[in-house]
Amino acid sequence: MSNQKLFNVAVVGASGAVGEQIIKLLDTRNFPIQSIKFLSSARSAGKTITFKGVDYTLEEAKPESFDGVDIALFSAGGDVSKALAPEAAKRGAVCIDNTSAFRMDENTPLVVPEVNPEKIKEHNGIIANPNCSTIQMVVALKPLHERYKIKRIIVSTYQAVSGAGAKAINETIRQSKAVLAGEPVNPDVLPVGGLPVKHQIAFNAIPQIDKFTDNGYTYEEMKMTNETKKIMGDDSIEVSATCVRIPVIYGHSESVYVEFENSYDLAEVKALLEKAPGVVVQDEPETQLYPLATDAAGKIDVFVGRLRRDITSENGLNMWIVSDNLLKGAAWNAVQIAEYIAKGE
Amino acid sequence: MSNQKLFNVAVVGASGAVGEQIIKLLDTRNFPIQSIKFLSSARSAGKTITFKGVDYTLEEAKPESFDGVDIALFSAGGDVSKALAPEAAKRGAVCIDNTSAFRMDENTPLVVPEVNPEKIKEHNGIIANPNCSTIQMVVALKPLHERYKIKRIIVSTYQAVSGAGAKAINETIRQSKAVLAGEPVNPDVLPVGGLPVKHQIAFNAIPQIDKFTDNGYTYEEMKMTNETKKIMGDDSIEVSATCVRIPVIYGHSESVYVEFENSYDLAEVKALLEKAPGVVVQDEPETQLYPLATDAAGKIDVFVGRLRRDITSENGLNMWIVSDNLLKGAAWNAVQIAEYIAKGE
Repeated sequence: MSNQKLFNVAVVGASGAVGEQIIKLLDTRNFPIQSIKFLSSARSAGKTITFKGVDYTLEEAKPESFDGVDIALFSAGGDVSKALAPEAAKRGAVCIDNTSAFRMDENTPLVVPEVNPEKIKEHNGIIANPNCSTIQMVVALKPLHERYKIKRIIVSTYQAVSGAGAKAINETIRQSKAVLAGEPVNPDVLPVGGLPVKHQIAFNAIPQIDKFTDNGYTYEEMKMTNETKKIMGDDSIEVSATCVRIPVIYGHSESVYVEFENSYDLAEVKALLEKAPGVVVQDEPETQLYPLATDAAGKIDVFVGRLRRDITSENGLNMWIVSDNLLKGAAWNAVQIAEYIAKGE
Repeated sequence: MSNQKLFNVAVVGASGAVGEQIIKLLDTRNFPIQSIKFLSSARSAGKTITFKGVDYTLEEAKPESFDGVDIALFSAGGDVSKALAPEAAKRGAVCIDNTSAFRMDENTPLVVPEVNPEKIKEHNGIIANPNCSTIQMVVALKPLHERYKIKRIIVSTYQAVSGAGAKAINETIRQSKAVLAGEPVNPDVLPVGGLPVKHQIAFNAIPQIDKFTDNGYTYEEMKMTNETKKIMGDDSIEVSATCVRIPVIYGHSESVYVEFENSYDLAEVKALLEKAPGVVVQDEPETQLYPLATDAAGKIDVFVGRLRRDITSENGLNMWIVSDNLLKGAAWNAVQIAEYIAKGE
């Protein structure tokens, strides 16, 4: 017998790449569910979703869909969140939003539970889930920032196609088969939906994720800058990112250079990371152990390795950070926030 | 009628991935050849090589193979070069060596013709061809170093598997097919021949190229540091590299952050690069134009784009540099040096 509080949950965007992982995690983590409903855009409505052996029909998300909902997990695109998260919040739901719609809104906390869990309670009905490439970086850097104070970060990413959704996964598989068969590739999805030019992703590296901003960086790159400052609660941290899509299905890798205010000890860095929540250190050059996307795929942790003192600066550190972009980078971070809410933390 | 001098040429390692490209370039560039011979290790001897419609038999390279040879192009591995390049030089040949055997030898010039062509004449029988990842970077950075003086470089690479030879190409194709068919991958070649641990390269990113050195960087990474200083003729340039293998067949991409001593103007940077020898600028965010490995493959140029002022430092610049690692990164740089020698430059 248990007195655990149970929750009425809604998953919005249930048929997407992230939505699928959210549903899987709500199941495997045994989230305390009273009732659950699966919502989507009009386009996907009518599809069947199976949860804990029961079939559910995807319903089109409308304002009144959220009547009686306690927790709503959104991952159906920014437009859906912008239109419906405030409606859901108005009806008393706490929305955990996986899109970029509210991330930089000053009334919306932007949360990575390993970094700033205290912000969860400050919500006004909406809690934003950060961008995948930012989440894994701040999980690894938080304990080092606390100890040595980060001045700046230069990061180059190696991002998986699943970050661009199920269409991009299918496109990568289709193109890879075409290249291997010596057939034409005809790019159709990447780099950016809604932009006219498409590039081949199979056996290629595309240095564009999201549209370009006026300063020459892309929105994806500027998200890493702006979200890092907000999550870490420190505007003095400078971040310069180069975000690149590569033909990997699951798991973002990041080559991170970080410069500290204070001097550091490499053995202490390793020790701090080893006891950091959500972090697994894989750093044994002698046995060729370092994080790999193929190893991280399907796991909820952030993997860190290739730790070494930078040879061009006094307090510089280089590291290689890998995590499953659909899990810690999206679905797991969202469900983790929901778990904090469920526990009243 | 021509009084052009003709040369007796030897290609050592003629059946390898780089050797093949050297032979193709000697043909298409109409290198002034009196006679040509194709040499290899004992293992490959006996194979047939076709050049300008004539079949040649690969002969095992021995010291006396170089009697009468004017120019010898080596790409058969460091051990072959160490054993035979001095023998060839003793017999009067000028050796252009594509391995790392003599690169840091102080009596051997390390040459990229766009950067330090004047060093070619200073040879003592051997001229070293730099590492692929270094060549494309210094071609793009040379005009900027001359104008603004580089203090330091932080580079993360996205390197093609062809840099590890024909075996790695075959392995990548084999593994990709296996993954797409849902079959086991059984890695056998990468990351490093001669080391016990093998990792999957298909749909993955491996942050190891070459063995590890004591400071935590790999040899590949330290090559970028040491070779850049030597080619640029400036030990004050600091380089920190993270070298990563990705599932691309031809063409290395590099995310490069460079910090100048002096302030710079972004429009001037672009103008300098547009007139730099061997460089093609592809930098139009508005049309999604930037360098791509698939576009660079098969071309001899170095492609530069994603030019933008760094937002974390005063004189920092970010750029994306792509080139065919087997051409400018290896075979073309070597044949280009041979052309300088042929012209007596």
